[in-house]
Amino acid sequence: MQDTEPRFSAMRLYSARMAVSPLRVQLFLAEKNVQIPETTLDLLKGEQRSAEYQRIAPNMRVPTLMLPDGTVIRESLAICRYIEALMPEPALFGRGALQQALVEQWQRIMELELLQPMAMAFRHGHPMARTIQEQVPEFGVQARAAALKRIAILNRELADRLWIAGEGFSVADLTAFAALRAFRFADFSIPEEHANLTRWFDAVRARPAIHARFKAWGAK
Amino acid sequence: MQDTEPRFSAMRLYSARMAVSPLRVQLFLAEKNVQIPETTLDLLKGEQRSAEYQRIAPNMRVPTLMLPDGTVIRESLAICRYIEALMPEPALFGRGALQQALVEQWQRIMELELLQPMAMAFRHGHPMARTIQEQVPEFGVQARAAALKRIAILNRELADRLWIAGEGFSVADLTAFAALRAFRFADFSIPEEHANLTRWFDAVRARPAIHARFKAWGAK
Repeated sequence: MQDTEPRFSAMRLYSARMAVSPLRVQLFLAEKNVQIPETTLDLLKGEQRSAEYQRIAPNMRVPTLMLPDGTVIRESLAICRYIEALMPEPALFGRGALQQALVEQWQRIMELELLQPMAMAFRHGHPMARTIQEQVPEFGVQARAAALKRIAILNRELADRLWIAGEGFSVADLTAFAALRAFRFADFSIPEEHANLTRWFDAVRARPAIHARFKAWGAK
Repeated sequence: MQDTEPRFSAMRLYSARMAVSPLRVQLFLAEKNVQIPETTLDLLKGEQRSAEYQRIAPNMRVPTLMLPDGTVIRESLAICRYIEALMPEPALFGRGALQQALVEQWQRIMELELLQPMAMAFRHGHPMARTIQEQVPEFGVQARAAALKRIAILNRELADRLWIAGEGFSVADLTAFAALRAFRFADFSIPEEHANLTRWFDAVRARPAIHARFKAWGAK
C-alpha cells in the first residue's frame, strides 16, 4: 500500500474543507493514492489568521505542506509538483517536454481564466465572503461574467477531447474541477445545455479515487 | 554558440515590447542564451485581436511559442518550462524535488501576490489601459494598495537572502523583476527606503544576459 509510506505519514497538510485550493491538492493526493495527515482550518471563522498558522504561512493561505523536518511548502501547485517528484505515477503533470508544457499551459489557462474569476466573483459578490474581503460589487459582477463566458468556452473545447489537456487526465482537469465543485454553492452550477462540460465533470467525479474521497467526506 | 541551434531558430515567439508576460519569457531566454525569432505585437493598437493571431491564441494573450511543426504553446510559464526541458542549464526552475517545489512556490507567490495586483492596478486604474479593460476604478485602488503592501513585504524578505527563492537566481526572480520593470511607467517605482529590494532589482538588472537584452532594446 502506497498510502502507508512513512515519508508521507510523517508530513502534515494544513488544509480546509471544500475550499478550492485545498480541494485541488486533496484530489491530487487521492489520485496518487498518497495519504498525508491533515489539519483542517475553518476559513470563515478566520483560523488561518491565528498566530500559530501565520508562523507556517505568513500570507495566511491554505494549503501548506509541512515536511518531517519542519520545512514548509506553500502554494497548491508547488505541493502537487513536489508529490509528483516523489511519486511520479500516475503522471498528472504529463510526460515528456511537450506534453508537460501543454499540461502546464492548460493548468494555467484553467487557473487564470476560470478558477480566478470564479474566486473573484465569490470574494467580491457573495455575502459569505464579507468577512474575508473588502468587496467591490461591480468588480464581482465583471468577474462573474468572465467566469460564465469561460465556462461556455470550456464546454466547446471539450467537444473533441476527453480531458482538458488532451491526452490523459491531468492537473489541469483537477484545477477546473475543483473550481466548478468548490464554487457550486456560489451559484456556479453548470448549465444543462453544456453537455460536453457536464459529461467531463461527471467523468472526473466518477474517477474511483475522487469518488471515494467525496464519499469519505460525506459530500456529493 | 547555443543561440544558433536550428531547433530554436526554427521556432517563433509571438511577443510584445515591455509587457510583463512577454518580458518574463524574453529575459528567461536571454538567461538561457537561447535566441528565438520574434514577432512583436502592439497590444495597445489591438494587434493581439487580429483574426490571424486569434487562430494562434484564441484568448488573445501574449506570449505564445510556435514550434517548427506548427504546435503552439501558450502561457509564459509553460513556454519557460518547455525551454528548461530542452536546455536544462542554467537551471531556472531549481534542482531536485524540494528546491524545485520552493522555486514553484515563490514563482507563484510573486505572480499571485505581486504581479497580478500590479497588473490589475494598471488595467483598472491607468488611462492607457482603457482600450483593453472596462475599468472598475475602486478595484484598481484596492489592487494598487495590495501591490504596494507586497512590495514592502518583499523588501523585508530580501533582507537575508540574495534571490527570492533563496538558493540561486530563478524564474521567481524573473516574475518579480518583470512585474516591477514593466509596471514602472504605471507609477510603481521602488521607494528609496526599500534598500533590500533596490539592491536585488539592481542585481537582476546587472546580470550580463539581462543587461545585454535591455541594451539591445535601447531601454534602461
